[in-house]
Amino acid sequence: MTRLAQGKARLAQVDAAAADDVMASLATIAPDVGKYILEFAFGDIYTRPGLDLKQRELVTITSLLTQGDTANQLQVHLNGCLNVGLTQTEVIEAMIQCLPYVGFPKVLNAITVAKDVFAARA
Amino acid sequence: MTRLAQGKARLAQVDAAAADDVMASLATIAPDVGKYILEFAFGDIYTRPGLDLKQRELVTITSLLTQGDTANQLQVHLNGCLNVGLTQTEVIEAMIQCLPYVGFPKVLNAITVAKDVFAARA
Amino acid sequence: MTRLAQGKARLAQVDAAAADDVMASLATIAPDVGKYILEFAFGDIYTRPGLDLKQRELVTITSLLTQGDTANQLQVHLNGCLNVGLTQTEVIEAMIQCLPYVGFPKVLNAITVAKDVFAARA
Amino acid sequence: MTRLAQGKARLAQVDAAAADDVMASLATIAPDVGKYILEFAFGDIYTRPGLDLKQRELVTITSLLTQGDTANQLQVHLNGCLNVGLTQTEVIEAMIQCLPYVGFPKVLNAITVAKDVFAARA
Amino acid sequence: MTRLAQGKARLAQVDAAAADDVMASLATIAPDVGKYILEFAFGDIYTRPGLDLKQRELVTITSLLTQGDTANQLQVHLNGCLNVGLTQTEVIEAMIQCLPYVGFPKVLNAITVAKDVFAARA
Amino acid sequence: MTRLAQGKARLAQVDAAAADDVMASLATIAPDVGKYILEFAFGDIYTRPGLDLKQRELVTITSLLTQGDTANQLQVHLNGCLNVGLTQTEVIEAMIQCLPYVGFPKVLNAITVAKDVFAARA
Repeated sequence: MTRLAQGKARLAQVDAAAADDVMASLATIAPDVGKYILEFAFGDIYTRPGLDLKQRELVTITSLLTQGDTANQLQVHLNGCLNVGLTQTEVIEAMIQCLPYVGFPKVLNAITVAKDVFAARA
Repeated sequence: MTRLAQGKARLAQVDAAAADDVMASLATIAPDVGKYILEFAFGDIYTRPGLDLKQRELVTITSLLTQGDTANQLQVHLNGCLNVGLTQTEVIEAMIQCLPYVGFPKVLNAITVAKDVFAARA
Repeated sequence: MTRLAQGKARLAQVDAAAADDVMASLATIAPDVGKYILEFAFGDIYTRPGLDLKQRELVTITSLLTQGDTANQLQVHLNGCLNVGLTQTEVIEAMIQCLPYVGFPKVLNAITVAKDVFAARA
Repeated sequence: MTRLAQGKARLAQVDAAAADDVMASLATIAPDVGKYILEFAFGDIYTRPGLDLKQRELVTITSLLTQGDTANQLQVHLNGCLNVGLTQTEVIEAMIQCLPYVGFPKVLNAITVAKDVFAARA
Repeated sequence: MTRLAQGKARLAQVDAAAADDVMASLATIAPDVGKYILEFAFGDIYTRPGLDLKQRELVTITSLLTQGDTANQLQVHLNGCLNVGLTQTEVIEAMIQCLPYVGFPKVLNAITVAKDVFAARA
Repeated sequence: MTRLAQGKARLAQVDAAAADDVMASLATIAPDVGKYILEFAFGDIYTRPGLDLKQRELVTITSLLTQGDTANQLQVHLNGCLNVGLTQTEVIEAMIQCLPYVGFPKVLNAITVAKDVFAARA
């Protein structure tokens, strides 16, 4: 299976709906970026052994929360977290664990996104 | 048990040696910061249910790696990761999982710290 | 008086209206984060001696402006600045003082928030 | 010619329309910031020899993309890029070149702004 | 008095020794950057009315602490803080005030620099 | 030619000596990260049409300067800049162009690295 096919399969496990949106939005302006997301992020990285998908999504939302200005990406990966089996409690706890390291503003921003994501799935 | 005592007990589980160093270095200039680390970070946050210590350390090193300029804190929490039962492979995999989200420079910086920490424990 | 009660009293001095909004928005999804804001941020930190409330709010808006992606928190603390007695001129001057250290984009972002806050209080 | 006049002339070359908007929005709240943009950013810096305007705009959008929370400023300077002669392809390629250094989220944010800018000029 | 002369006079009030070092280090590689520090940062900005020098230095160290990777600049402006009349207690309190907004790692980094600066002046 | 071979060839053009160091340092702890640098950063991205190597290096040092905590990577790519034909003046001008967008501290940090790199090649 090619890296592209592996990436597509893995992304479908994480967040199939969001993936289609991102790819469609990149199609006319920067299709190669969509290809790199599939090949590199999901084909090379997400398919590695060593961490399970729940751990990978935990790491991903932590990184997104910490860098800030990532509400759109957090929305995708909060859905991803829940899709691969993390609970809403675990997601919120991961954000609370960041409090001593990044302070309140970034955690509050992430919780705001989580609130919308959880509501949309209720 | 007080928040302070709970925090001390929890920090001792994560990285007892580093804790002593940080507290000693804060003792003369800002002892309350040491107290807040124990009471808030380790007493309030690290003792919460919802995530186990391995998950909390995974989130912590991801947050430190992502914000940058945290080599000292990464050193403490990379030891913490290994002390609470994460393997060296899991630690490195968490860093690699950050590649699509933060790029290579911050991951390379964190791997450099990990190399020293792993060597010191070998 | 408990840390929680102290924090509530202090937050009421800084920005009572905003506080209610933040707590209400956290109530269903992460009420402990609201508790930590009251106990730690406002109970432990804002009640310390050594700086007056005007100096603390000056430091706070500077930190928020500098880290970016904090429009919501800036809105709260720009009101806080004015509530504790800083003038609109002092607030804008603090933002201008940041120009050599963070450049124009973050200062322009903060001024945009200030413009809305000042207008809403006019 | 004064620094102010030089800055105005140079800014007019980069993005005349956006400049008027920024100055108007600063006029009542912080007019000196508008003056510093003209005198320092465009009068002192943009008029230096050593790099041509295309190189300066390439550096500028890279810096804005990398720091994040700069959608408004990116909009101005993406127009600036095209106004001074960079092609849409070059702009997108510069964003793609950032992928290994900042990761996907910031690049996706910038591409979203570029999509709007390109559409508005079509 | 020219902007350059005003900037030199103001910088001499804040931290004369550090200023000489920075200018000397820029002299061969980028002397204009030294000139902009004097003209823009210290001539235009630090000489503005609206905030006194103590407030300006409080804002400056907060901005430096918050953005990270600024140990050298913090060293200059921690001396500046003390030179313009802030006490060591006020400086440390400003750092502690940042805890809820930036988390522990950046505050610990800044305290480490403060410890060296205070010791060198003892 | 494989992505790996293309990446190796391209990296050799940019900074052959540094490449060997980075790969050697990753060999025992995270060899796949070295592979991804070659395959993704240099094989996929650096070999794209649309920007020449001088433009790509200009974008790269701007991104590194802007994110901070990247002295090691800046050292590699400042050599890369000069290796692909940018002049020392162009490199310093790119840093000066960042002044209005990131402020003085990050630019001063980058100039410090540049000074060492230029001296080592003199």
